[in-house]
Amino acid sequence: MGLFKAAGVVYKPVEEIDLGPDSNEFYLKANVKAPRMAGFLVKIFAWFLESRIIGTLLLYILKRNNLIHKLVSNATLEEAPMFVPLHPFVDLNEQEVEQIGSDASPAERVQRAMNCLPLTLEKSVDDSNSSSFRRWTIADYSRAYSSGEITPRKVAEQFINAVHESSRAALPMSFFINYDAEDILKQATESTLRYERGDPISALDGVPIAIKDEIDCSPYPTTVLVLLGGTKWLHKVRPCTGDACCVMRLRSCGAIIVGKTNMHELGAGTSGINPHYGTTRNPYHPNKIAGGSSSGSAAVVSAGLCPAALGVDGGGSVRMPASLCGVIGFKPTFGRIPHTGVLPLNWTVGMVGILAGTLEDALIVYAAISGQLPSHEPTILPPKLLFPLLNSTNPMSEIKFARYGEWFNDCSDEIRICCSNALHLLCEHYKWKTVEVTIPEIESMRLAHYLTIGSECTTSLSSALEKLDFAELGWDARVALRVYGAFNSKEYIKAQKMRNRQMQIHKNIFAKADVIVAPTTGVTAYSIFDDALKTGELDYINGAALVRYQISGNFLGLPAVTVPVGYDKEGLPIGLQFIGKPWSEPTLMHIAFAMQALCISHYRKPKVFYNLLHKN
Amino acid sequence: MGLFKAAGVVYKPVEEIDLGPDSNEFYLKANVKAPRMAGFLVKIFAWFLESRIIGTLLLYILKRNNLIHKLVSNATLEEAPMFVPLHPFVDLNEQEVEQIGSDASPAERVQRAMNCLPLTLEKSVDDSNSSSFRRWTIADYSRAYSSGEITPRKVAEQFINAVHESSRAALPMSFFINYDAEDILKQATESTLRYERGDPISALDGVPIAIKDEIDCSPYPTTVLVLLGGTKWLHKVRPCTGDACCVMRLRSCGAIIVGKTNMHELGAGTSGINPHYGTTRNPYHPNKIAGGSSSGSAAVVSAGLCPAALGVDGGGSVRMPASLCGVIGFKPTFGRIPHTGVLPLNWTVGMVGILAGTLEDALIVYAAISGQLPSHEPTILPPKLLFPLLNSTNPMSEIKFARYGEWFNDCSDEIRICCSNALHLLCEHYKWKTVEVTIPEIESMRLAHYLTIGSECTTSLSSALEKLDFAELGWDARVALRVYGAFNSKEYIKAQKMRNRQMQIHKNIFAKADVIVAPTTGVTAYSIFDDALKTGELDYINGAALVRYQISGNFLGLPAVTVPVGYDKEGLPIGLQFIGKPWSEPTLMHIAFAMQALCISHYRKPKVFYNLLHKN
Repeated sequence: MGLFKAAGVVYKPVEEIDLGPDSNEFYLKANVKAPRMAGFLVKIFAWFLESRIIGTLLLYILKRNNLIHKLVSNATLEEAPMFVPLHPFVDLNEQEVEQIGSDASPAERVQRAMNCLPLTLEKSVDDSNSSSFRRWTIADYSRAYSSGEITPRKVAEQFINAVHESSRAALPMSFFINYDAEDILKQATESTLRYERGDPISALDGVPIAIKDEIDCSPYPTTVLVLLGGTKWLHKVRPCTGDACCVMRLRSCGAIIVGKTNMHELGAGTSGINPHYGTTRNPYHPNKIAGGSSSGSAAVVSAGLCPAALGVDGGGSVRMPASLCGVIGFKPTFGRIPHTGVLPLNWTVGMVGILAGTLEDALIVYAAISGQLPSHEPTILPPKLLFPLLNSTNPMSEIKFARYGEWFNDCSDEIRICCSNALHLLCEHYKWKTVEVTIPEIESMRLAHYLTIGSECTTSLSSALEKLDFAELGWDARVALRVYGAFNSKEYIKAQKMRNRQMQIHKNIFAKADVIVAPTTGVTAYSIFDDALKTGELDYINGAALVRYQISGNFLGLPAVTVPVGYDKEGLPIGLQFIGKPWSEPTLMHIAFAMQALCISHYRKPKVFYNLLHKN
Repeated sequence: MGLFKAAGVVYKPVEEIDLGPDSNEFYLKANVKAPRMAGFLVKIFAWFLESRIIGTLLLYILKRNNLIHKLVSNATLEEAPMFVPLHPFVDLNEQEVEQIGSDASPAERVQRAMNCLPLTLEKSVDDSNSSSFRRWTIADYSRAYSSGEITPRKVAEQFINAVHESSRAALPMSFFINYDAEDILKQATESTLRYERGDPISALDGVPIAIKDEIDCSPYPTTVLVLLGGTKWLHKVRPCTGDACCVMRLRSCGAIIVGKTNMHELGAGTSGINPHYGTTRNPYHPNKIAGGSSSGSAAVVSAGLCPAALGVDGGGSVRMPASLCGVIGFKPTFGRIPHTGVLPLNWTVGMVGILAGTLEDALIVYAAISGQLPSHEPTILPPKLLFPLLNSTNPMSEIKFARYGEWFNDCSDEIRICCSNALHLLCEHYKWKTVEVTIPEIESMRLAHYLTIGSECTTSLSSALEKLDFAELGWDARVALRVYGAFNSKEYIKAQKMRNRQMQIHKNIFAKADVIVAPTTGVTAYSIFDDALKTGELDYINGAALVRYQISGNFLGLPAVTVPVGYDKEGLPIGLQFIGKPWSEPTLMHIAFAMQALCISHYRKPKVFYNLLHKN
């Protein structure tokens, strides 16, 4: 039945797989067979793909060459499909945590999170001239506002000037898709009044926070001025009717919502090259990509415009740009943060995530936006929120890292050396241990995830796409959508069977260790070429290197965090990633905090940086 | 993008839908456009469908004519997909129930269930000559064994003779795909010894119970003698390695497992016409179908061979044959009964269900097999099992039935009148009320369910099918598999969006009433034609009439029960169905019991009936 047949892999039962270091499970390097394309080539390719006969054949060849038939579509595996990575609560008995009732308000939760932070000496804002570079933190803003050194209004003005300046540079940074100076000043004025009355709402009061364009956010409503999802067209078919739940929570803490950050169109790529709104550039090197799809959110934090920003992570889209831009990227467990009001580019792999200059600030934003979900969101939340006591003087005992050597080392030499050194330093300093493991079928999982996110994206947008002239899309998005729409229901369900299988495999890995450790990306930020700016770019080889370490965080809904641990010889940041058990955010943050503590004194200042707490 | 485009329905938000009796929501009759086919015609049709070019075109036309494009594939709806109908537990404060801890053993649960039954006078087995017909119940068996009137061994012998006789009749009944006389006698002998020692395990000890072929069951292991799923081939690729969890539980109560009952091949049809194992015939009229796909399980209970049997209900497959054969058919809430060891013909709509001669016996089997699931089965089970106190003298107060007139009446005149009268009688007798409602988009839900079960079936069998010559399948199953495999991932996910939408709609219906009431089928058992026996038959018009009232039970995972309430002029049984809120089995069983009490004195004896408790 069917013209094309390709033999599929027969996967053996999970309990028969050796997950130890000497396993004979094969590490399959992603053998991406597709040349880089930009400019005219992308147009030709999109045009061929969209033609009915040649397109169908091309898609078949693409799927076969990339082993989708062999590893997923025609594979044999016994597992039942798992459609949504919901994790039942298991009490992990985490160490050094603060328990928060699930009924605490966002502002209360922020206050409780502040109490978990280490007491640093009150620094004056002018300390920024000290030898090592550091970004201003939420605590810095809060202290500066409370002491009257500076006002939220003044910060907002400097913010607006900085964004203006950044977009007029020779290499425009393209941080934002939209920001409304008037609205920002209005919020800042209200915050300033609250401080004047001595009555700020929380430590987030007056702190600028940026929001990825995919997340609904007032006052950027259903007008032609405001576009969602990084497209030029989606607003025409999907009205934004107000704040997403996570934005609402930040606002209720007094944060100043400073605009919608740039992103890869539809989140369908990892470079951040957006033909409609300009290519977000890397603050460490404006000729390099910022990564994506939460490109703008990573870049604004890196460039000092906000201590934190929200992104959405469906395939590493928070962690990749965070790593490339040298900031913290934190994706909590699936279901931990409400999804209400986020453009549903997918339903089962994406999560709101946090980009922040420091782990402490990631914790504060996490406190503000996590917890009890609107009743219609299906999940099984743990009964309590736990925050890590980052101010504890007891180091966590007995942490064990699972490290899969072949995978860990499947990256550039500089990343491998830098990440290995960082891990070594961490284990040495805290007497923690590394366990060598084998994580099988990583490439199969990547393909199953691709098939899943593609199918869901195309479904979510199907009604919108029907009303549209395809000419309104960028060329690389056109290619992505054509491939996304090429899967049948059997392939989708097979991918969900793979999800269940990997869930079992990871459960077994987590029986050996507390946390999986790997680099965040296989390459550092690569160059932006002029031919890509107008059409977008297809670079599946670099793309595969970027997503290599992301998939379990999305497909299995595991919490994961990236920490900057060094720089390559061009001065581009390198991130190390920790992937935790479901609901193990406190442990994960403890570990990330420990890693940061060992690296922070070596952090470097980006080429593009704005000091908003500067008093002139 | 795409040669074929068909405009899709734009569904309005659920909260704007008027669910009241005067709603302007349109009742769309299933306008099935496909002629009945059997014999040579089915072969031609299968052959065309399986050809690449013509087949693709034919499938397109079939899907369009049956409104799949318009109502599902190209529809616009805001709901997120819901892939699995898992229902969080809500305390329904049910009346007149017995609470059972979830750690009770199956035998303990059976004992507790027995305590919920009304005390009937001890009847001698010879009372069967009394005026009104009734089948022997589990309690009858238990009493007859305990009093020594008859032994399990003797019953087993009579069972074997009866099955033998039934298969040698002029119209062979084809009840079983497999039964092993030696194994049955062995079980019966062990049971007889337990009674002789005065030590039976439970009321089920020595009671014959039949199992649908789809459910794994020893001693019918991986041999060429034993075939699974009603096919001639599946055993070659899927070994059966032992008892399914529900069979194990019945066995642990002492029940005699008497064999694997016949079913529609792959559960892919509703008639029970099986070209490999013969067509199961209706005990009330052997020239009529038994219904399907749990054909044999319904027929053996109807014919008195077992007081109860297990079936699987993925699209009414327990309730339809139960109704057509004049017995109780009970499908609990999705997730209530473990699925381990059941052939996964689908993952998100099917459920083990119970066929029984009386509601009391359905309760006893329910007690034996429900409760705590193996840990790998994802669900959210209520903390306690509740059994209805059928012996309560307090009638339940204040039951409200939701009745959707246009749907209720979309059946044969005889069914309409019979079901209306029964409902009227019930409301009158117990002072219960009927609320007129409108349940919108029932046909859309049927199509979304079809798309779902088809996609899952084809995925589940894909590896098996690759290894097979299609000539080993029956012709109607070949057609079904070709249609099942014709959906893309977008269509599958769209169907899951429809599932969420209908979940919301039903939640709103259940805010108005406790239970939805409707006939069980739109037609009674129809004739078996000779041309269908060898090839199978395609009769989508009768098929649609059979499944008309089934879908919410499967697609939304709602509990549902059918009760025999009368006969048409040919003497064929008619069932009335009650569909309950999630986890409301006790209320549902109370209501079904009340309905049965009002009808039982009019029950008729089938033409084919065996009295196994007869002492000779």
